[in-house]
Amino acid sequence: MNAYVTDFVGRVADAQANRIETYIRAHDFDRPTLVLDTEVVAANFRALKAGLGHADIHYAVKANPAREIVEELVNLGSHFDAASRGEIELCLSLGAAPDTISFGNTVKRGSDIAFAHHAGIELFAADAEQELEKIALHAPGAQVYIRLIVDASEADWPLSRKFGCARDKALDLLALARDLGLRPVGFSFHVGSQTRKAEMWTTTLDQIAAIWAQAQAAGFDLSLLNIGGGFPAFYGEEIEHPTTYAARVMQLVEARFGHVARVMAEPGRGLVANVGMIAAEVLLVSKKSEQDMHRWVYLDIGKFSGLAETMDEAIRYQFTTDRDDEATGPCILAGPSCDSADVLYEKRPVQLPLGLRSGDRFIIRCCGAYTSSYSSVGFNGFPPLDVVVI
Amino acid sequence: MNAYVTDFVGRVADAQANRIETYIRAHDFDRPTLVLDTEVVAANFRALKAGLGHADIHYAVKANPAREIVEELVNLGSHFDAASRGEIELCLSLGAAPDTISFGNTVKRGSDIAFAHHAGIELFAADAEQELEKIALHAPGAQVYIRLIVDASEADWPLSRKFGCARDKALDLLALARDLGLRPVGFSFHVGSQTRKAEMWTTTLDQIAAIWAQAQAAGFDLSLLNIGGGFPAFYGEEIEHPTTYAARVMQLVEARFGHVARVMAEPGRGLVANVGMIAAEVLLVSKKSEQDMHRWVYLDIGKFSGLAETMDEAIRYQFTTDRDDEATGPCILAGPSCDSADVLYEKRPVQLPLGLRSGDRFIIRCCGAYTSSYSSVGFNGFPPLDVVVI
Repeated sequence: MNAYVTDFVGRVADAQANRIETYIRAHDFDRPTLVLDTEVVAANFRALKAGLGHADIHYAVKANPAREIVEELVNLGSHFDAASRGEIELCLSLGAAPDTISFGNTVKRGSDIAFAHHAGIELFAADAEQELEKIALHAPGAQVYIRLIVDASEADWPLSRKFGCARDKALDLLALARDLGLRPVGFSFHVGSQTRKAEMWTTTLDQIAAIWAQAQAAGFDLSLLNIGGGFPAFYGEEIEHPTTYAARVMQLVEARFGHVARVMAEPGRGLVANVGMIAAEVLLVSKKSEQDMHRWVYLDIGKFSGLAETMDEAIRYQFTTDRDDEATGPCILAGPSCDSADVLYEKRPVQLPLGLRSGDRFIIRCCGAYTSSYSSVGFNGFPPLDVVVI
Repeated sequence: MNAYVTDFVGRVADAQANRIETYIRAHDFDRPTLVLDTEVVAANFRALKAGLGHADIHYAVKANPAREIVEELVNLGSHFDAASRGEIELCLSLGAAPDTISFGNTVKRGSDIAFAHHAGIELFAADAEQELEKIALHAPGAQVYIRLIVDASEADWPLSRKFGCARDKALDLLALARDLGLRPVGFSFHVGSQTRKAEMWTTTLDQIAAIWAQAQAAGFDLSLLNIGGGFPAFYGEEIEHPTTYAARVMQLVEARFGHVARVMAEPGRGLVANVGMIAAEVLLVSKKSEQDMHRWVYLDIGKFSGLAETMDEAIRYQFTTDRDDEATGPCILAGPSCDSADVLYEKRPVQLPLGLRSGDRFIIRCCGAYTSSYSSVGFNGFPPLDVVVI
């Protein structure tokens, strides 16, 4: 048990992380399985909410759409950020009220906007003229917020320019929304995935606050600030306690924006990453050449069956085996598929027990976010990642 | 219609490519759909087989496991390269004889080897000691071939070192196989994906032939050479006619190895890439800033719903729209998910019609390989790529 989990939400989370590990060690799995504990979701939600104050938590459903997680969050009073019609239907089917759901994808099919509108969803994201035109056509009178591009990010994993408009278009889009009969209520942005320290938000918030002030000066009555995600999870590098972190972010927000009527936060990873671990198995340990210093370790799970976030070795998962007390050596870690790109960590090899061998249990920690839903339908004939909720 | 398709297998493939396009243009799709034509599979198989001579074609099922494709290939007398128990079950269920199936994954679960053995599969790949031990335990007496790493590749997409052993281990592994009661019958290798010209095989074949000769000299009676895949598909850069290409590869093989009793070729992409096109739709066209020279075009399909091979912009798909006669401009192409990594082409933008807009049909050519099975189970709530066989 690493120091972080003990620190995180104290003994409760510690016991719960142990609960998942204990469950995995007590069971046999005939395929890779994600084991989830919804009690950890509740602990995370409360810890974040304690720091966020009056801001609404809109859970980013894409991080993990397991019905049990969404249901737990509905019961806790969470709001939701939906990426698609499918996610909206999921939330509604589990009892979420339509006015707690934001349709946060800036790229929507017209018919899906119409569906959301008829289902009672009132809040939509946009970053382009055509998107506003679609929303005006299919959800007349809806509230919209304009997503802005952030220029510099201090996140571990800064986002691309895919989402948002540059600041030179922000006011024009607000005006277009108004002209189209929509209600332009504010802005959204994203600081970047895994923004590990609250102070890293400062530069971004400064940029957004400047536009906010310009929009107010231009007569737009803004009432909504969507601060997006970026709430970090533990992948081996120290992070702050979620309550402390969230409270500091809100201080930074209030220092720049004053009191905003409606602040939305959209944690995904930060709410569910530590809710699950993957029970995997070692299929093969080998050396490519007698001269090689490192070994290759092949697991029964790889990039195409749940560990897609290892692309470019971005997310560094933590592992535990039944041999953690043995001496270790550097290993290249790879998945089971006949795909040469299905290598998890090679540029920065991982330290694994020297005695590790085929058939050994291999537990991958902090896998609750962006694993099961990324899994392929059956690449190489392997079934998708199985999910068990305890 | 590009020159390649006309050249490829002449007017038949030309008419068939038109058949897929005609089908797509005549139908509406409410989600991205891969449209496959099994008649093109048959034309491809015959064209390759005409060049390969006595070599057996083992279709790499992972390229596209659609039942109709596998069934067509069973009827044509194809053999199969299976990556998993799931693929073996698929082939057997469609009438493939067990002795036409090779279990070609070098990373296998012990219980899956036992399953294959009991199902009558006699041929297994290995590249490591532990793998040979597993095969000896679960499929005693089986034939095995040792996969070798190729040092230099001239392929468009060279493989990583994930599969194969270095040549300094090749003879030791043959000897270990023999000592374990297995039948070491030969070697396999892979020249790399998209090896566009037959002459690009020369360096690799020289390397393998040297080891082959050493093994013969050491008293191993080798009878099998598995030349793997690498047979190219058309993604915008000229390729050779498949019959010419395959015949030249076999000439290069025979010049180095003489007559080998059993030569296996494992085309995947080369057999099925041009068998399908994806019917997609434009969801949004926008500019991030008034200063930007390029537009962003967002489709209803992306990296996580079938176009995984755009990673690092490796595979350059070809497109056609209903506005191909209009003037074009540079575009960044992206998928529909709320994932900043879901950008298809950005470093090398694509030229697309200036009039392109939301709702337009967007056809992606040459999508029969490595699309549907890579698709995620439901990332962002989007359903997996749909497949229709005409």
